[in-house]
Amino acid sequence: MATAGKIVASSLCHTEMFHLFEGKDKRGFPTVLGHEGAGVVESVGPGVTDFKPGDKVIPVSVAHCGECRFCKSPKTNLCERSWINDHVDLMSYPTTCFTCRGQPILQFTSTGTFSEYIVINQIYVVKIHDDAPLDRVCLLGCGIPTGYGAAVNTAGVTPGSVCAVFGLGAVGLAAVMGCKNAGASRIFAVDINEQKFEKAKLFGATDFLNPKAYDKPISEVLAELTNGGVDFSIECVGNPEVMRAALESCIKGWGVSVLVGYTDVDFSARPIQLISGKTWKGTLLGGYKIKDSLPKLVNDYMTGKIMVDEFITHKMDLEQINDAINLMKTGQCIRCILNISK
Amino acid sequence: MATAGKIVASSLCHTEMFHLFEGKDKRGFPTVLGHEGAGVVESVGPGVTDFKPGDKVIPVSVAHCGECRFCKSPKTNLCERSWINDHVDLMSYPTTCFTCRGQPILQFTSTGTFSEYIVINQIYVVKIHDDAPLDRVCLLGCGIPTGYGAAVNTAGVTPGSVCAVFGLGAVGLAAVMGCKNAGASRIFAVDINEQKFEKAKLFGATDFLNPKAYDKPISEVLAELTNGGVDFSIECVGNPEVMRAALESCIKGWGVSVLVGYTDVDFSARPIQLISGKTWKGTLLGGYKIKDSLPKLVNDYMTGKIMVDEFITHKMDLEQINDAINLMKTGQCIRCILNISK
Repeated sequence: MATAGKIVASSLCHTEMFHLFEGKDKRGFPTVLGHEGAGVVESVGPGVTDFKPGDKVIPVSVAHCGECRFCKSPKTNLCERSWINDHVDLMSYPTTCFTCRGQPILQFTSTGTFSEYIVINQIYVVKIHDDAPLDRVCLLGCGIPTGYGAAVNTAGVTPGSVCAVFGLGAVGLAAVMGCKNAGASRIFAVDINEQKFEKAKLFGATDFLNPKAYDKPISEVLAELTNGGVDFSIECVGNPEVMRAALESCIKGWGVSVLVGYTDVDFSARPIQLISGKTWKGTLLGGYKIKDSLPKLVNDYMTGKIMVDEFITHKMDLEQINDAINLMKTGQCIRCILNISK
Repeated sequence: MATAGKIVASSLCHTEMFHLFEGKDKRGFPTVLGHEGAGVVESVGPGVTDFKPGDKVIPVSVAHCGECRFCKSPKTNLCERSWINDHVDLMSYPTTCFTCRGQPILQFTSTGTFSEYIVINQIYVVKIHDDAPLDRVCLLGCGIPTGYGAAVNTAGVTPGSVCAVFGLGAVGLAAVMGCKNAGASRIFAVDINEQKFEKAKLFGATDFLNPKAYDKPISEVLAELTNGGVDFSIECVGNPEVMRAALESCIKGWGVSVLVGYTDVDFSARPIQLISGKTWKGTLLGGYKIKDSLPKLVNDYMTGKIMVDEFITHKMDLEQINDAINLMKTGQCIRCILNISK
């Protein structure tokens, strides 16, 4: 059930950075990185009926077979056939479309969009609007839905609520946008890099905190500013200490903290944090079931309901990938669009 | 706003055991232990209008002032005036009705029911049915609502779901009863003391697991038996390793794990546990707002909707308190009713 396509544009996301510099699981290499891309279908294999050559598509790391008990449940966007169920350390499914001198090269998160041409199982492919600009909506393949959905789906931010978003990369900024669009009355943007505050304001943040500017924990600072803590906190860093701070920043009784950033070391907290009525949740791709939701998000972008262009700080050719990685590592870039096929 | 009353009966709960043998915070001693009691109002102070001498009452560790933003919210049973907000290490509010040779003796969790007479702020007192048998419904002061509510309120167990309860003390057995009354189709009772399985069956458990009987993690055993994990898990031990196992035993996508057992060391897990769609919650007194809910639970007991007598394994006089503590420590006792005032 394979779909072959030309990738037009792809962005670089923190998940690649994690795999390259933190996770480094040997079984996950060699791999073609890239999972936030967009392209055009070139051909389809036997049994593929939902796509035809020329269709604009976004390949996505979270599968949707539409037939398993997860896909059929309204409670989750996981799919029983997704690589992530059994190969999270590998960060890929073991079979791949790439080989080099007879050796298999993995497709990162079952996509691998830093390649002019790829073959993907159709359960990872979403058809989008024919007029969608691929060099922009490629961002809807991961980071933006992840953060935005963490706010509107997983946290379920309510009108008038007080929110805090920890980490102001693309995912965090999308979470800020989600909080704003869900009607939050106050949105704290928290980051140790104050240069990101201006961008956060553009997406809807109302208050800005640099934890390094205080001599007490940021959770105490937030508790004082909000009469006990925020209603919703969203962690978009992938750091266990920040995950803990995000939970501790929630108000007792009903605070909800959502863990979005990925890492493979333990996170922790004191039991009283949960016993006092807080909830700790997590999300993959913002809880969106891709086949229905991504086309809608593309339309929402095209009709001005959500921002996408504002995430783009750099554009480069694929050959400049190492420069893009350095920009991400040093926090100088929100999203860099890589021109994959001219 | 004080209510003075005679305590008729009180049970011993794990929270006392924690304070005596694990927490041991010096600021929490000397104290009159006991917080799962029932008695009769003797007199009321100025401003108390909800109680009169002769009323049967249950003193409870979770306050309800009825006026604060927490009491007014349907989302929580916390109260802004409760000792637990600011004195959780102390396990008491610093002011007390007890003194001994001029020295204050604390009231454990603001109650202190191992005493013939106590004075309590009315926000910690609940009026119950005139015909309620105090030497039984005293159990509704803590353990039973805590476990039962963890299932029916906090976890929100749904009809047909698969549940696992870790730890089969009174709280765990009440959680089993909650899962059953909520319509769970399969309830795994998990404990390293197999002698508790018979009791668990009485409360509705359908399957029984001793983690020590397997050479792999209990979460893997449960995953194999349930095609991926349980819908709801409830931790009633107060042990970080069990808290972790309970979360890991949940199914991806929608599993909910509720932390009920208290301890003051960190609990932890891998981020993928939450990112894959599980939810970690906690509960204090099962989420019940005491003033409305406890009288209803007393009535539910009196009309046979919930079991209470079945938790009672021992009865003793207050003088035998040390024997009761030893029975609890060695796991030989579910609940021991102490006869406080004859």
